Amino acid sequence: MSNEVRTPEIAKLGHFGLVSKDLEKSLWFFKEVVGLEETEVKDGVHYLRAWGDFEHHTMTLRQGEESHVDHIAWRTKREEDVDAFAKKLEQAGIEIRWVDEGTEAGQGKAFRFELPSGHTFEIYFKMEKTLASPESRSVLKNQSHKSWARGVSPRRIDHVNILTSLLANDLSDFLQDQLGFNLRECVQTPDGNLVGAWLSVTPLVHDIAISHDPFAASTQEIHHVSYWLDNSQDLLRAADILKENGIFFKGPGKHGISQAMYIYAIDPGSGVRLELFTNGYLIFEPDWEPIVWSIDEMDIGFTYWGDQMDTKPENNPTIKVYDDKKPIRS
Amino acid sequence: MSNEVRTPEIAKLGHFGLVSKDLEKSLWFFKEVVGLEETEVKDGVHYLRAWGDFEHHTMTLRQGEESHVDHIAWRTKREEDVDAFAKKLEQAGIEIRWVDEGTEAGQGKAFRFELPSGHTFEIYFKMEKTLASPESRSVLKNQSHKSWARGVSPRRIDHVNILTSLLANDLSDFLQDQLGFNLRECVQTPDGNLVGAWLSVTPLVHDIAISHDPFAASTQEIHHVSYWLDNSQDLLRAADILKENGIFFKGPGKHGISQAMYIYAIDPGSGVRLELFTNGYLIFEPDWEPIVWSIDEMDIGFTYWGDQMDTKPENNPTIKVYDDKKPIRS
Amino acid sequence: MSNEVRTPEIAKLGHFGLVSKDLEKSLWFFKEVVGLEETEVKDGVHYLRAWGDFEHHTMTLRQGEESHVDHIAWRTKREEDVDAFAKKLEQAGIEIRWVDEGTEAGQGKAFRFELPSGHTFEIYFKMEKTLASPESRSVLKNQSHKSWARGVSPRRIDHVNILTSLLANDLSDFLQDQLGFNLRECVQTPDGNLVGAWLSVTPLVHDIAISHDPFAASTQEIHHVSYWLDNSQDLLRAADILKENGIFFKGPGKHGISQAMYIYAIDPGSGVRLELFTNGYLIFEPDWEPIVWSIDEMDIGFTYWGDQMDTKPENNPTIKVYDDKKPIRS
Amino acid sequence: MSNEVRTPEIAKLGHFGLVSKDLEKSLWFFKEVVGLEETEVKDGVHYLRAWGDFEHHTMTLRQGEESHVDHIAWRTKREEDVDAFAKKLEQAGIEIRWVDEGTEAGQGKAFRFELPSGHTFEIYFKMEKTLASPESRSVLKNQSHKSWARGVSPRRIDHVNILTSLLANDLSDFLQDQLGFNLRECVQTPDGNLVGAWLSVTPLVHDIAISHDPFAASTQEIHHVSYWLDNSQDLLRAADILKENGIFFKGPGKHGISQAMYIYAIDPGSGVRLELFTNGYLIFEPDWEPIVWSIDEMDIGFTYWGDQMDTKPENNPTIKVYDDKKPIRS
Repeated sequence: MSNEVRTPEIAKLGHFGLVSKDLEKSLWFFKEVVGLEETEVKDGVHYLRAWGDFEHHTMTLRQGEESHVDHIAWRTKREEDVDAFAKKLEQAGIEIRWVDEGTEAGQGKAFRFELPSGHTFEIYFKMEKTLASPESRSVLKNQSHKSWARGVSPRRIDHVNILTSLLANDLSDFLQDQLGFNLRECVQTPDGNLVGAWLSVTPLVHDIAISHDPFAASTQEIHHVSYWLDNSQDLLRAADILKENGIFFKGPGKHGISQAMYIYAIDPGSGVRLELFTNGYLIFEPDWEPIVWSIDEMDIGFTYWGDQMDTKPENNPTIKVYDDKKPIRS
Repeated sequence: MSNEVRTPEIAKLGHFGLVSKDLEKSLWFFKEVVGLEETEVKDGVHYLRAWGDFEHHTMTLRQGEESHVDHIAWRTKREEDVDAFAKKLEQAGIEIRWVDEGTEAGQGKAFRFELPSGHTFEIYFKMEKTLASPESRSVLKNQSHKSWARGVSPRRIDHVNILTSLLANDLSDFLQDQLGFNLRECVQTPDGNLVGAWLSVTPLVHDIAISHDPFAASTQEIHHVSYWLDNSQDLLRAADILKENGIFFKGPGKHGISQAMYIYAIDPGSGVRLELFTNGYLIFEPDWEPIVWSIDEMDIGFTYWGDQMDTKPENNPTIKVYDDKKPIRS
Repeated sequence: MSNEVRTPEIAKLGHFGLVSKDLEKSLWFFKEVVGLEETEVKDGVHYLRAWGDFEHHTMTLRQGEESHVDHIAWRTKREEDVDAFAKKLEQAGIEIRWVDEGTEAGQGKAFRFELPSGHTFEIYFKMEKTLASPESRSVLKNQSHKSWARGVSPRRIDHVNILTSLLANDLSDFLQDQLGFNLRECVQTPDGNLVGAWLSVTPLVHDIAISHDPFAASTQEIHHVSYWLDNSQDLLRAADILKENGIFFKGPGKHGISQAMYIYAIDPGSGVRLELFTNGYLIFEPDWEPIVWSIDEMDIGFTYWGDQMDTKPENNPTIKVYDDKKPIRS
Repeated sequence: MSNEVRTPEIAKLGHFGLVSKDLEKSLWFFKEVVGLEETEVKDGVHYLRAWGDFEHHTMTLRQGEESHVDHIAWRTKREEDVDAFAKKLEQAGIEIRWVDEGTEAGQGKAFRFELPSGHTFEIYFKMEKTLASPESRSVLKNQSHKSWARGVSPRRIDHVNILTSLLANDLSDFLQDQLGFNLRECVQTPDGNLVGAWLSVTPLVHDIAISHDPFAASTQEIHHVSYWLDNSQDLLRAADILKENGIFFKGPGKHGISQAMYIYAIDPGSGVRLELFTNGYLIFEPDWEPIVWSIDEMDIGFTYWGDQMDTKPENNPTIKVYDDKKPIRS
């Protein structure tokens, strides 16, 4: 046995905290149109998850004066990794703020900190694996809720994509060096500037992506949060449902990067962009070399085929990622 | 820095070696009907992979007097893990046999050994990531071959399922203790006997499953090898293709365990059972508790809905897993 | 101009009238699980249709002492065809019973009669094309209701399949001679006995099928009623929904005859068998020659692949088709 | 019995004759990429059909100096309808040109004429229902060829869409009055001008559509020819195949009008636009009222969601429809 402290590791994306200036509309969107399940409501915070999510929640939703994401939370591999990450980040000169057990329903001890871009992250390990209510519970022992209960009905949270006016290089390095992410794919200029980076700790091509846009509203925007569906037809069915409910969306289309299909829909309450996501590939290779796309190859990288996003920033209003306890950086 | 030897780890299922008593028929089945790509043919061995596989091969195929699988190969996370696993297994009293670099085309130094049941495993790290030929190569940089070139056209290898007349308890323990697999789901009798176990080192529910059948032909049979498709409709299209080509199969159906859809088809050359597989769930939770199904729940666990396997052993002839250099144990 | 009376023609299957001994359970099944829309409730009769049906109803549902189908209704091509069919059938010695306009909500003048087997048919032309309520109405002008509102959510009624202990020959002739159906496919013994017949007036392979079973409970049973879905994945999603709701079903599978995919589910209220149906082919050829399957080919005709129906009559309880105003024949 | 001549009727779209200035490339596109089957080659004409087409061919392909469609052929309901249509059209002052039996392989006596716009139509009844070769033949008795043999593999021909610089009003009237088509949907200006019309003789929403574009290259262009696929995933699979083969296309998307999904691909040989088509609704109502979309509603009518066509004529080069024996009108 060695008494060496093991390098702390991130296991997975846990959840994100959405603050909406129109809570009622966001609740309608996420619960009725998207079809997320509500684990509980406590102190004005709605705890939501998809039918195939195992944790207490993969999303929180509450009212606020300005719509924003107040944190993006990552679950560690081991309980002791929370302290180890805190130590490691503080040693790197990063300010951390502890969040007591139970502050977020179902969650144990956690801490928050800001990326160099200002985006707020949360690190935690303990989280209740809440059973669904008897009426909502699946007949399958390995599935939380019945599927297909309402609306689009995605299976689980998939990833987040953060948007920034900064180049992605430093943020990508930070995620790799401090948090152990692996760079899986990227878009690079001839000068070595990263304008897009896809990173993961899991075999998913990305648990997080960094999108650089020089015209982005700040360094700390969110491009989208993403939930997973099992089949392409489930995504096309989602398009019908979104259209019937008057939700604005782009897609369906297929990314070259990740090889996955997408729809981008806007929550009419908060303005956050939700990606519905399916297909794509997994990376099991331990010695994966990042796929580097040039600027010339970017079009096929973003949209292999199908309806593409309007890339002009003025057509892409975004919301910021910041903790209410921290001033916005930029 | 510590000079402690890190626990060696398995990264993924690599490939399996199929020996067919009717090579021509097996080649037709795997290349034309299933649609695998041939990386190269060397010394009478055909090296095959699916269009989305990144390694040199995920399957080898050669002629033999008796159809069998001569090894199931696992890739380690790091190069030094090969030696570390060799040491660990020898310390546990297991005989290992080294396989020189290049013995298997594209592959570095490796070794083989037998499970307590007699099934032959291979451990390796180095493997060529061969580019597809220009005509076959995908226009996408992150995809090996064009998809949908011929036949069923699965994306990648998924898992293996070994069959044994032994209870699964010891084998499951061995895979966990010696190779670091995690038990994800199992079927257990009231006495604690495991009749089925699903284990993985990746977020897949299983990279390997152990099926116990007291009437199995030996301790060291293979139940099936499995390749992945992205969509349920791709699986139904496969059913049409199999039927038009006169291939016997069972399915489509949906497993409760793994929540995945399946078709089981028999290679008319070797008799090996091929599972075509899609949908299902992933396990990202670091503290996953195995899902335990009782004997009463087994039916829904095996077939949630759809066409089920005939479970009578006399209707399920299987082939063994053994290295030609080792006598069959049982 | 000629004053010749044109041969009356059937345009389409209109609806069927289901009587359930457990109305509450049948309403739950058809409205919540299957997801049919309710146009109105009048005099204890629930008028239902799928989101893509254009008529006032394609199904009626009411309480009764014995579960049965009280009529199967066919819409004529022209208003005057109702009288013309009445005249033609009476000339053939068939007793008809007029049903006044409004007896069935939304429906004009109609009449009922019995097939030689005792099954009750209704002939009508006038039917209200009711708009959906504003909340339920589709944003598409050519679609009645929003799709995917609840449950399985099929698009439209497709066909009926009647079961009889009689050979299908006479019934098939009757449908062709008296009502103008075309024989599209059939299963025939070497003696020329028809044990199955698929007939249509539309390009669908069948608007009605006749299933012969010598062990059927009577001459006038219903094998199933069928609703259409657009995609195979919609059918597999239906399997999940049925399973989560504890509904017994067989399938999914693919018929050789019609080339369509199926699930057979049992309404827990009435016991009627509902087929969910997709894919398959259309017949536009004006000189179509019926496809004749021999007894040897019957297996592939019924189940090309997938989970098949249990064909033993004791495992297939059915309900009868009869008008309450008429005694059961057999 | 009356000796009155029955109104002749069209049963279905039969085929179209494509002339390509690059036959080799068009053959590669239609046979290898799209996956049509070749019934025979005679006098330099390739006779093609989809695996589920029952007639000898649904498309002919030959070399020519200028790419164009030389006729669009319609099959009548009865053999005597060919003469009856000839008589009716001549009485309306339309010039007809007889085409002898066997001029087109497999086809009986036929005639050609021009629409008021100049588009050439052909009317025929007799057509060989050729069996596929033994290797290509389906194991199903009701299906011509094995499905999924190569490329996209659509099931059958679906419809044609003709493009014209004329308003659609007169053409729509002509198709209704002279040929018995029914107007199913249309786009109309406040002045009553039709800019789009969808018409059919079958329950398909359209066997033919008329697209008006004031900037169209002539009165007699073809907008697209269309083949049918059974499932939305089959269409998305087609997108992958087209992309891997370097074929330009728009879509996938969903039309409001017809409710069908589409991909528009360009044959690199002839420049003709091929629509791959699935889902959508059928019209069985005998008293269907045309759905009228206003100019304001046109966008949702053309593209309910997804990747839309570029509507600028300069980005939409088209080819003309004319018989080589007739001068181009416009």
